[in-house]
Amino acid sequence: MVYTSESIEKMVDLFASLPTIGRKTAQRITYHLLRQQPEQLDKFSSAFQGLKMNIKYCSVCFNYTETDPCPICSSQRRDTSIICVVEEPNDVLAIEKTNEFRGSYHVLHGILNPLEGIGIEDIKIRELISRLTEVKEVILAINPSVEGEVTIQYLARLIKPLEVKITRIARGIPVGASLEFTDEATLSRAIESRIEVG
Amino acid sequence: MVYTSESIEKMVDLFASLPTIGRKTAQRITYHLLRQQPEQLDKFSSAFQGLKMNIKYCSVCFNYTETDPCPICSSQRRDTSIICVVEEPNDVLAIEKTNEFRGSYHVLHGILNPLEGIGIEDIKIRELISRLTEVKEVILAINPSVEGEVTIQYLARLIKPLEVKITRIARGIPVGASLEFTDEATLSRAIESRIEVG
Repeated sequence: MVYTSESIEKMVDLFASLPTIGRKTAQRITYHLLRQQPEQLDKFSSAFQGLKMNIKYCSVCFNYTETDPCPICSSQRRDTSIICVVEEPNDVLAIEKTNEFRGSYHVLHGILNPLEGIGIEDIKIRELISRLTEVKEVILAINPSVEGEVTIQYLARLIKPLEVKITRIARGIPVGASLEFTDEATLSRAIESRIEVG
Repeated sequence: MVYTSESIEKMVDLFASLPTIGRKTAQRITYHLLRQQPEQLDKFSSAFQGLKMNIKYCSVCFNYTETDPCPICSSQRRDTSIICVVEEPNDVLAIEKTNEFRGSYHVLHGILNPLEGIGIEDIKIRELISRLTEVKEVILAINPSVEGEVTIQYLARLIKPLEVKITRIARGIPVGASLEFTDEATLSRAIESRIEVG
């Protein structure tokens, strides 16, 4: 039997429950924290309370926000006639970082996955459709997995009768990657989606 | 300017301040937490308070503990005449896991490092010496870095006049490693510390 303290074990267990963190790393982090000033532990403690108390869904786009509607939905500088549909809130962050997109978002909170029992009512599809009254374009920025494809096809069929332009983000060779090491499916999509030069 | 919420940013910053966690991973973990039940955030919050409120140093061995003396120092089944000296509390955990050692510990909380200004008064050396009244053996289980060597030599000189046996843990080839890929310094130590067979 290894002697450790209950408080330390509890912390290690919690860290080890997080993605990308194994048990050894969880231990290392916990012992690191014990070497810090006690105020640092308070900061963590209240940051978790902050997440719990302050973060809710935006009632328009369903991104995480502290104010409702969220800063993007309430901004005068964003084009509400273009909606970019994503799976998860972190996808919004990824697209915002490009500084390219000036439209608005809609977070589905998942994708259709019949095998795992995730159906139409489990993600924010109904809420998306109800937003499409004065919308010109819906961009489907959904990850190109098998389930992502199913979701894209389903949404396209659903939105088509509403006479809204539907696009999806391009699949192709990542910037900086070489043809040689690109998988065949990606390369074939890149050729298919070729664009005219000059 | 990327729109994110202050509470989310605060959490990401804190996670990114931990060892082995970069900013991308910190983001991933934070968004993972937001998808959990709110009670999970409470668990984290109170685990940090638990660390802060419950963990102190054992007044004998200076390991982290919730009770003073710690379970190892107060156990009747441990040999208090053998003290294993380690740098940090996580070293105690590592040795306990071997289930080999039945003596007691002393945690220095650092090693001598003149370049970083860590001297004799900054680590628990005085406290170690004051424990050596009825002690038969001191095992120095200090990492074999340059500073570790300095600390080992210093402690050996300090303890020698007290007529206590001083040992250090063996350096050699790790179990499962091959001679071919062992560095020269380790291999030369392994030959030097050879033991008789049969």
